[in-house]
Amino acid sequence: MRAGPSQEEIRRHNLGVLLRSVHVHGATSRAELTASLGLNRSTIGALTAELAAAGLVTEEIPRDRGRAGRPSLVVRPVSQMVYVLAFAIEADRVTAARVGLGGLVLDRVEAPRRPGPGPLDEVVAPLAAFARQMCHAAPEGSRHIGTGAAITPIVRDRDGQVRPRAYGSWADDPLSTALAEAVGQATRSDSPITRLGTADLAALAEHTRGVALGCANVVYLHGDAGIGGSIVAAGRPLTGHGGNGGEVGHMVVNPAGKPCGCGSRGCWETEVGEQALLVAAGRQIGTGAPGVSAVLDAAGRGDAEAQAAVRQVGDWLGFGVANLVNIFNPEMVVFGGTLREIYLASAAQVRSRLNRTGLPAYREHVRLRTSALGNDAPLLGAAEAAFEQLLADPLADVAGTPLTGRATGPAQPAESGLS
Amino acid sequence: MRAGPSQEEIRRHNLGVLLRSVHVHGATSRAELTASLGLNRSTIGALTAELAAAGLVTEEIPRDRGRAGRPSLVVRPVSQMVYVLAFAIEADRVTAARVGLGGLVLDRVEAPRRPGPGPLDEVVAPLAAFARQMCHAAPEGSRHIGTGAAITPIVRDRDGQVRPRAYGSWADDPLSTALAEAVGQATRSDSPITRLGTADLAALAEHTRGVALGCANVVYLHGDAGIGGSIVAAGRPLTGHGGNGGEVGHMVVNPAGKPCGCGSRGCWETEVGEQALLVAAGRQIGTGAPGVSAVLDAAGRGDAEAQAAVRQVGDWLGFGVANLVNIFNPEMVVFGGTLREIYLASAAQVRSRLNRTGLPAYREHVRLRTSALGNDAPLLGAAEAAFEQLLADPLADVAGTPLTGRATGPAQPAESGLS
Repeated sequence: MRAGPSQEEIRRHNLGVLLRSVHVHGATSRAELTASLGLNRSTIGALTAELAAAGLVTEEIPRDRGRAGRPSLVVRPVSQMVYVLAFAIEADRVTAARVGLGGLVLDRVEAPRRPGPGPLDEVVAPLAAFARQMCHAAPEGSRHIGTGAAITPIVRDRDGQVRPRAYGSWADDPLSTALAEAVGQATRSDSPITRLGTADLAALAEHTRGVALGCANVVYLHGDAGIGGSIVAAGRPLTGHGGNGGEVGHMVVNPAGKPCGCGSRGCWETEVGEQALLVAAGRQIGTGAPGVSAVLDAAGRGDAEAQAAVRQVGDWLGFGVANLVNIFNPEMVVFGGTLREIYLASAAQVRSRLNRTGLPAYREHVRLRTSALGNDAPLLGAAEAAFEQLLADPLADVAGTPLTGRATGPAQPAESGLS
Repeated sequence: MRAGPSQEEIRRHNLGVLLRSVHVHGATSRAELTASLGLNRSTIGALTAELAAAGLVTEEIPRDRGRAGRPSLVVRPVSQMVYVLAFAIEADRVTAARVGLGGLVLDRVEAPRRPGPGPLDEVVAPLAAFARQMCHAAPEGSRHIGTGAAITPIVRDRDGQVRPRAYGSWADDPLSTALAEAVGQATRSDSPITRLGTADLAALAEHTRGVALGCANVVYLHGDAGIGGSIVAAGRPLTGHGGNGGEVGHMVVNPAGKPCGCGSRGCWETEVGEQALLVAAGRQIGTGAPGVSAVLDAAGRGDAEAQAAVRQVGDWLGFGVANLVNIFNPEMVVFGGTLREIYLASAAQVRSRLNRTGLPAYREHVRLRTSALGNDAPLLGAAEAAFEQLLADPLADVAGTPLTGRATGPAQPAESGLS
């Protein structure tokens, strides 16, 4: 029950809404912004002028107008000069990117990584090197405004404790601390790293620019070493009390099932995870995504044991999806990570089980889809998370670099001959 | 990505925030409102004056001030003159109440009902009679501003179709239509009925005035003929795409379990519902809440068969709770309806199963609680839902009765010698 905002809060909110719009949708004319944001022309002009003075957008006359009348200036995000660093630490690789405002990937590099836990430096050193290279290659005068990292949760320590996946920076987490220090040296700033789980960031990317764009209620499922999940409810991520909502891999689907690493038994990830597929197909475990692909390829070539394994995993996949559809009533379920391939190979089983276990009013309207952004979804989500602070309040002092559009004096409503 | 609100929208929003505050918290001094709402004194004074002019609040000098200095006027909701009608249609009874602004129950009446489906008129006729009586007994000049109804979903028709539980009125639903017509005759208005499921409204009541007050992430579970659920995530009800989120009774917990009325097998309600308890205890089914109480009483007296039944149901109850804790990471799970008693009798089993199946970081911080509002929680929730339109925009034209505080001329900031 919060009272309404002040005029200054509204101005800052509107600056954020405008910048977010061109960040997500790309170059947009003032006329289109006026229509889509529900603000009047002079307000759009004033806000755009402030963002332009801060170096966040440019305004230009459209080259090919194709019709008569005064042209509406096109507002474009300054992708080359305003960027974030994004990292993804996954089971078998580390990835880094420099991503410009507007979501443009300016630079991207990856290195393989030995699966499983290892010394911190095996992850931090290559990412720090990537950060140095990328910042060095960035144009003179360009601004680093944030860093995001997607980290596949080493789901639990030996004591069964789940590591929290809180929003924001993890001050006392060794990996975050080491990574922040290395990035700080590379970028010569001390901005914190926004660190979230792989599934949460992949879901954010798919919801912002991927297959779930415009969907308010989404269940996103991510397969890697385990099964991660992230829920979007009424347009917002479901975080839960401790920032840990959506741990659907540890929904028990089979009380008579196999022991799970979490100490429970029959968790969903024991039935549909990478290891379950490899065991069912009589393959060696621990081979990661290539091992999963090998089973799916074998099934495609007619290998009976692999086909049976895919059917079995697909049936449990549909079973868990049906439960989540009954619980969340989503409009879309998205399969990402290794679940993308697994779903494509077992869609018939998934749909068949959903039809038997899902409530009719729910299952009939839900769309089952695969990730549109593929393996880079977590990396792109890390970039989106890193942009969040700037988009929420564009002229605030971000990452130690004051954006001084406002400080140069009151913005002029830039209404000349052009609107 | 909506642009910021206009001044007029902010004023209306603030009127709603102030009215909601005294509706929930009762009489509050202007000084306390200034502090809790973060608005300045003169704004609080102006808003209060508008609400007072509309007959929604009164302002008075506190009787016993107990300290020196100028008294701060106390703002009080006008409970006797501004009211809603609330109905609850449950498995074995119908209940009606007239509830004043501020949540004061002014009148309440109930009648038993034969369990199971029956002619529409068996439900509508007594409720219409109650509505007539209560409106007749209301003081001259008092205003009926809305109607809410809690309806235990006859979960599915013979074809397995769940009836939708959309927010707002159900234009094409026979029960809603008949009830709205009867209430319209009684109240001489044609306001729609806000109809929601029993679990959703009980959760709303517990979240507004009950055990979950102040909790942002809640799983509410309601036992009656089946198992209903309602989720509060980040302070808001989880509605899902079609308004049906939270149907946790049809999460499958036992793939080898009993067939469920929904067409699936092993749904949670087949293991923890009323019928499961009665069957496990060797009792006759279909005896409703009294039948459940009889089993729990017998277990309390040492009846071995009843004790075993309670343990068995408690184990499955804990199992489903653990799954929901892993999925939602709530700060509280609330047991209402018949689950209130069942949980109290089986808390040891529930906690034990939660400890085995819940993830440590989640289960350690979750509080398990019983409903504070008891059997009237759905009725009180129906009243809250009926107040919602008024609280969202207090001076809008509600239920055909214009509230004319604004229309009498611009409100004067009522700052005299008193603040």
